[in-house]
Amino acid sequence: MIIALKNSIRTEEQEHLIQWLESQGVRVHISVGEFQTIVGLVGDTTRIDTDLIRGLTFVDSVTRISEPFKKANRKFHPDDTVVKVNGGAAAFGGGAFSLIAGPCSVESEAQVETIARAVKESGACVLRGGAFKPRTSPYDFQGLHEEGIRILSEVKKLTGLPIITEIMDIAHLPLFDDVDIIQVGARNMQNFELLKELGRTNKPILLKRGLANNIKELLMSAEYIMAGGNEQVILCERGVRTFETYTRNTLDLSAVAVLHELSHLPVVVDPSHATGAARYVKPMALAAAACGADGLMIEVHNDPPHALCDGPQSLTPEQFDDVAKAVRKVREAIS
Amino acid sequence: MIIALKNSIRTEEQEHLIQWLESQGVRVHISVGEFQTIVGLVGDTTRIDTDLIRGLTFVDSVTRISEPFKKANRKFHPDDTVVKVNGGAAAFGGGAFSLIAGPCSVESEAQVETIARAVKESGACVLRGGAFKPRTSPYDFQGLHEEGIRILSEVKKLTGLPIITEIMDIAHLPLFDDVDIIQVGARNMQNFELLKELGRTNKPILLKRGLANNIKELLMSAEYIMAGGNEQVILCERGVRTFETYTRNTLDLSAVAVLHELSHLPVVVDPSHATGAARYVKPMALAAAACGADGLMIEVHNDPPHALCDGPQSLTPEQFDDVAKAVRKVREAIS
Amino acid sequence: MIIALKNSIRTEEQEHLIQWLESQGVRVHISVGEFQTIVGLVGDTTRIDTDLIRGLTFVDSVTRISEPFKKANRKFHPDDTVVKVNGGAAAFGGGAFSLIAGPCSVESEAQVETIARAVKESGACVLRGGAFKPRTSPYDFQGLHEEGIRILSEVKKLTGLPIITEIMDIAHLPLFDDVDIIQVGARNMQNFELLKELGRTNKPILLKRGLANNIKELLMSAEYIMAGGNEQVILCERGVRTFETYTRNTLDLSAVAVLHELSHLPVVVDPSHATGAARYVKPMALAAAACGADGLMIEVHNDPPHALCDGPQSLTPEQFDDVAKAVRKVREAIS
Amino acid sequence: MIIALKNSIRTEEQEHLIQWLESQGVRVHISVGEFQTIVGLVGDTTRIDTDLIRGLTFVDSVTRISEPFKKANRKFHPDDTVVKVNGGAAAFGGGAFSLIAGPCSVESEAQVETIARAVKESGACVLRGGAFKPRTSPYDFQGLHEEGIRILSEVKKLTGLPIITEIMDIAHLPLFDDVDIIQVGARNMQNFELLKELGRTNKPILLKRGLANNIKELLMSAEYIMAGGNEQVILCERGVRTFETYTRNTLDLSAVAVLHELSHLPVVVDPSHATGAARYVKPMALAAAACGADGLMIEVHNDPPHALCDGPQSLTPEQFDDVAKAVRKVREAIS
Repeated sequence: MIIALKNSIRTEEQEHLIQWLESQGVRVHISVGEFQTIVGLVGDTTRIDTDLIRGLTFVDSVTRISEPFKKANRKFHPDDTVVKVNGGAAAFGGGAFSLIAGPCSVESEAQVETIARAVKESGACVLRGGAFKPRTSPYDFQGLHEEGIRILSEVKKLTGLPIITEIMDIAHLPLFDDVDIIQVGARNMQNFELLKELGRTNKPILLKRGLANNIKELLMSAEYIMAGGNEQVILCERGVRTFETYTRNTLDLSAVAVLHELSHLPVVVDPSHATGAARYVKPMALAAAACGADGLMIEVHNDPPHALCDGPQSLTPEQFDDVAKAVRKVREAIS
Repeated sequence: MIIALKNSIRTEEQEHLIQWLESQGVRVHISVGEFQTIVGLVGDTTRIDTDLIRGLTFVDSVTRISEPFKKANRKFHPDDTVVKVNGGAAAFGGGAFSLIAGPCSVESEAQVETIARAVKESGACVLRGGAFKPRTSPYDFQGLHEEGIRILSEVKKLTGLPIITEIMDIAHLPLFDDVDIIQVGARNMQNFELLKELGRTNKPILLKRGLANNIKELLMSAEYIMAGGNEQVILCERGVRTFETYTRNTLDLSAVAVLHELSHLPVVVDPSHATGAARYVKPMALAAAACGADGLMIEVHNDPPHALCDGPQSLTPEQFDDVAKAVRKVREAIS
Repeated sequence: MIIALKNSIRTEEQEHLIQWLESQGVRVHISVGEFQTIVGLVGDTTRIDTDLIRGLTFVDSVTRISEPFKKANRKFHPDDTVVKVNGGAAAFGGGAFSLIAGPCSVESEAQVETIARAVKESGACVLRGGAFKPRTSPYDFQGLHEEGIRILSEVKKLTGLPIITEIMDIAHLPLFDDVDIIQVGARNMQNFELLKELGRTNKPILLKRGLANNIKELLMSAEYIMAGGNEQVILCERGVRTFETYTRNTLDLSAVAVLHELSHLPVVVDPSHATGAARYVKPMALAAAACGADGLMIEVHNDPPHALCDGPQSLTPEQFDDVAKAVRKVREAIS
Repeated sequence: MIIALKNSIRTEEQEHLIQWLESQGVRVHISVGEFQTIVGLVGDTTRIDTDLIRGLTFVDSVTRISEPFKKANRKFHPDDTVVKVNGGAAAFGGGAFSLIAGPCSVESEAQVETIARAVKESGACVLRGGAFKPRTSPYDFQGLHEEGIRILSEVKKLTGLPIITEIMDIAHLPLFDDVDIIQVGARNMQNFELLKELGRTNKPILLKRGLANNIKELLMSAEYIMAGGNEQVILCERGVRTFETYTRNTLDLSAVAVLHELSHLPVVVDPSHATGAARYVKPMALAAAACGADGLMIEVHNDPPHALCDGPQSLTPEQFDDVAKAVRKVREAIS
C-alpha cells in the first residue's frame, strides 16, 4: 500500500501516522520527494482500512498495490478449488466442468420434471429453477416461493439432479435445506448481511457478479462468505451494465481469465441472463467454454412458443442439446 | 406500450396475442407495415410484464411509452408529497427544505452529542449516524449495531433532533422503533424483500439511488415501498458510478429536476458520499440547493484531524455552519 | 418510428406535423389514447431526423422501431459481405477468416521484417504496424509517421504480406497509397469528416468501435463510409470502457453475434488492445474464434523482455504461433 | 510514480530498469517487501511513458501519484488563467463570468441576427452557432458549412458580439479567421492531430469533455493544445455518458470543482447539450453558477414551436432572459 502525504503535513502528524501503521503489523518505508512524501507499506495490508487513512487531512492519496482479498486469493492458495456438489454429482474447478440448466421460473412440477429429464439427457448435471424472483417492478411475477422450492426438491428426487435456486433474504434460509447450491443474485452481491449468513452455512454458494461491480468487488464479496468459514464459493460472470442496448448486459468473458489468475475459485458463465436473447446463447456459451470457464448456467424451457412466462432468453431442450454438444467439442479442442 | 411483431407471425398467433392483451384491460391498435406490424396498447399498462411479451418468438421489440410506476408518478398525483418527520420537526417537499447532518459512523455518545448540538445550532433538523455500515471488505469496521442505535436514541432525547440511520437487513427492523427515518442504502436499492417489508411500516423511508441505477429503477424501488401502503418515501441522489476517478461517484444533479418532473416525492441530495471529499461538499451542496433539492444530507465530524475513523468526506462543525449559511443564501436567491 | 404526442397538442399543430411526415414519404397511423396520442410511421424512416421531431414542444417521445442504418443493414443485404484484400491474399467474412498480426509501433525495418516473417510462418495473412499513434499524452511517443509507412511498404515487398495501419487525419491520406487496409481507431470512430473522406476511397477500411460507443453507433459510422460509395468495411470489436480495471477495456464478444445478425459486414476482434495484457490474449482469441469472429488482430513483438517500447499486450512470435494453432482447432470444432 | 515489481525479476533486469529510470531524470527509491519490491520515482515523471514500463514482463503494476499534465496543472501555475476574447468583450476565469448563447445550427442571417440581438440584450457576451455539425447519421443535416461561418461573421459585425463555432477538421481552419473562439466538440476531444494544430494558433479554444472521458483525459487534451504554445484554453463540461436515459447525458458538476482544484484554466458548463431538454436547462444553469462555473453556454432559438430544425434543448429568448437573471442572482448569493 502506498500513501502519498501532502507537503503541509506537520512532523508530529507524520510520526503519529507511522507509529499507528507499524502498530497494525506492517513495515513502513518513507521516500521524501520535492512535492510529496511517499509512504510504502509492506506486509499484510488486508486488514488496513484505506478509507480511514484517506480521511486524514494530510493524506493526498492511498493506493493499494496488493489485493485486499486473502482467502479468495490465489497467491495464498495456488491450487484450484474444486467445488463438489452432492457428493460429486457435479463438480466445478480444477478441470471439472459442469452444465447447469433449467427454467427461469419454476411454474409446475410437470414443467420442471420435463425440462429436468431433457437437460439431464443432454448432459446437464445441476438443475436450476427460480422460486424467488427479483423483479424491478412490484407488479411483475415474483415466483412461487416455498412451493417453487418444494417442486424442485420433488424433481431432484425423481431425476437425481442436484438443484440450485436463488435466495433473496436471510429469513428464507430454512427453506433451502434440500437445495444443493444456493445462488446469490447480481442485485444481492453486496448484500453483506446475507453474505455473512451464508458464510456460516456449509453449502456451495454460487455468487453472481453485480451489474456494475468490478472483479475486485466480486472477490471481496466472495471473501465475506469465506471469512465466515464457508470456502465453497463458485463465482459467476453474468454480464455487466454498459451502454450497449442490443444485449441486456455485456458478458465480460475476460473476467474468466482474470478471475482464474487472481483466485483459485471456480468460475461459471451465464450467457442467458447476460445476453437476454436465446439466439446469442450458443455463441456466448462456446466462447465461455473456449476461454476456460468451469461451467455454464443456461435457461431452458420446454415450450417457449406457447407459454407467456418464459424469458426471451430460454432455449428449447433441443437447442440446449445442440449447445451442449458444441460446448463439448470446443472443450476438446482447447484441452 | 408498443409491440413490434415479426413478419413471420402466423394469423392465429397474432389473434391469440391480441385477445390476451385485451384480457389485461388495455385497448389495442394495430398498424400493418411493409416490414413490420406494430401493436399499440392504450390504457393502464403498468401491470403488463414486458418480459413476458418480449419472450414470444414472434415479437421483435417491446417499448414502453408510459412509465411503469404509478403511485410514485406525478401524472396520477400532481401535488408534491410533503414528508413530515416526528410531527413536523423536519419536513421535505412542497417547498419545505431540511438539512440532515451527522457523523458517518456512530462512535460514542459523547461524539454524537457534540456533533448533534453543533449541527442543530447551524440549522440541521435531522441527525444522521451510521450504526450498521455496508463495507466492501469483511475486514473493515462494520459499525456499532444495536449500541449505535441506542446512542442515537439517547442523543435524540438530549437534543430533540429526529434521527435517521441505515437498515441493512429485515431482521434488524425491531431495533428501529425509535428511529424517525429509515435509510435504505445504495447497495440495497434493489433488495426487494427489504423494500416490501418497509412498505408495511409507517415510518418515512429515505431511499438512496443505487450506484449504477437509473431514475426509472429508483422510482420502481420507491413503488415497491408505496405498493405496500407506505407512501412516505424520500428519494436521495448520492452519485452514480462513472469513469471519473477524482470523485468517488458522479453526483447527478439533473436527476433532481427529472425526479421532480416525474414524481411528487421529495428529493434529497447527499454531496458527501457522492464526492467522497470534504472540499467538494460545499460547491455541490450549493449546486443542489440551486437546482431545487428538498434537502441535503451532509457528513459532519467533530474532530477529523485527530480521529482515524472519520471519512475523508466529513466536514467539521465550523465548515458545516459555513455551508448551511451559504445554502440559505442560494435558496433565497432562487425563491 | 413511434411518436408520442402530448395531450396539450393543438389540432392545427397535429395536422401540420402529419402533413410534414407524409411529405417525407412515410405512411402515418394515429392511435388516440386517454393520456397520449401515438403516431406510428411506416416505410423508410432512415432519413427522418428524430432530433428535429423531438424538438417540437408538443412531442413527448420519439422511438425508432427500425434501424437507422441501411447500407450496413442485413435486412436489405442478406448475404455476407466478403472483404478481399490485395487480390485475395486475405479475406474476411462469408466463412473466410484471417489473422492480422504485427507490432504495436513500427520501430525499424529489421524489427518489422523479423516479426512479419515469423507471423506469416504461423499463418497470419495481414501485417499490422502503427505509424501514427494516438496517445493520451502529448509527451508520449507518437510513432514514426511517413517513415513508419515506408518501412511497412518495404516489408510488404519483402514478404508479400498486405499491410494495415491507422490513419489519424485526412491530410495524411496521400501517404496511404501502398496501404492495403486503412484502420480507423477507436478515438476516431465518430470523426465524421474522416469517415466521409474514406468513403470516397476504394480501399478496405477496418473500423474500430469507439471506447464508449454502442453497436448502433458503430454501424452508423460504417454507414458514413458506405454512403460515400466504399462498401468494403471491416468492423472491429476492441473492447469498451466499463468499471473493470484489471483489463484495459472489456471485450464485448456478444457484439460479434449481434453484428452478424444486424449487418452483413465482417467482424474482426482485437484481443490485444481490449485486454491490455499478453496473458489474456490467448483465452480471448479462442473465445472470439468460438463465437464466430471473421478474423483476429493481434500484437506481436519479437523481443518484449529487452525492449522498452512494446506494449504489455504484445505476444512473442512463439506465443503467437501457439495462439494461431489453438485458434485453428477451435474453428474446426465449431465448423 | 510507483512501480511494483514481480518477485521473479532477475537482478540484472532490476538494475537495467533502475539505470534507465535514472537516465530519465527522476530519483528512485526501492522498498523490498516479502511478496513484492516497490520502486518509487520522485521528480518530474510527466514525460515517462507508463505504458512502456507496464510492458515489461517483470513489472506487476505502475501507478502515477502525480498528474501527467504539466502546463494545465495548477501546481505549477497557481493563479487562475483568464481567457479574454476579442480584446476583453468577454472573459472567462479569475472571477470573470460570461454567457455564451445562440442557436444550435445557423439557419439564416435573419435568424441568427434576431437571436443575437435578443441574447445580447439579456447579457450574453458571446454568440454561438453551429456551421459544421457532427451528426451520428450521415443522412441527418450537417450544417451550412462556409455559409454558416459567413453568416456568423456578418452578425458579429452587426451586433459586436464575438463568435464561437465548432471545428471538425484541420482542413477547415482557414475558414475560422474571423471566429473568436474555436470550439472542439466532445467527439473530437481526443482527435490529437486537430489538437496539435490548434496549439499552433493564437485563438482561444473551448475544449469540450468527451462523452466517456474522465477529467484527467480532458486535461491531457488541454495539454496537447498548450504544449503547442497556445495556452488560452477554456474547458467545457457538457455531460458524460451514464446509464440514465431521461437526460441525454449526465452533467457532471463536481467536475467544475475538481477542475478548478487541479487546473488554472477556466471552466464553462453547457447545460443544453448535457440534458437535451429545455426544461432542465434552467435548474442546471443555476446549479452550475452555484458551484463556481466561469461561464455558461446555452442554446437559444427564436421560434421553437414553428421551426422543425431547433433542438429540443433550445430556450426561447424570453426563457433565456429569465435564466440569465436567475443566474446573476445565484452568483450574487455565492459571492
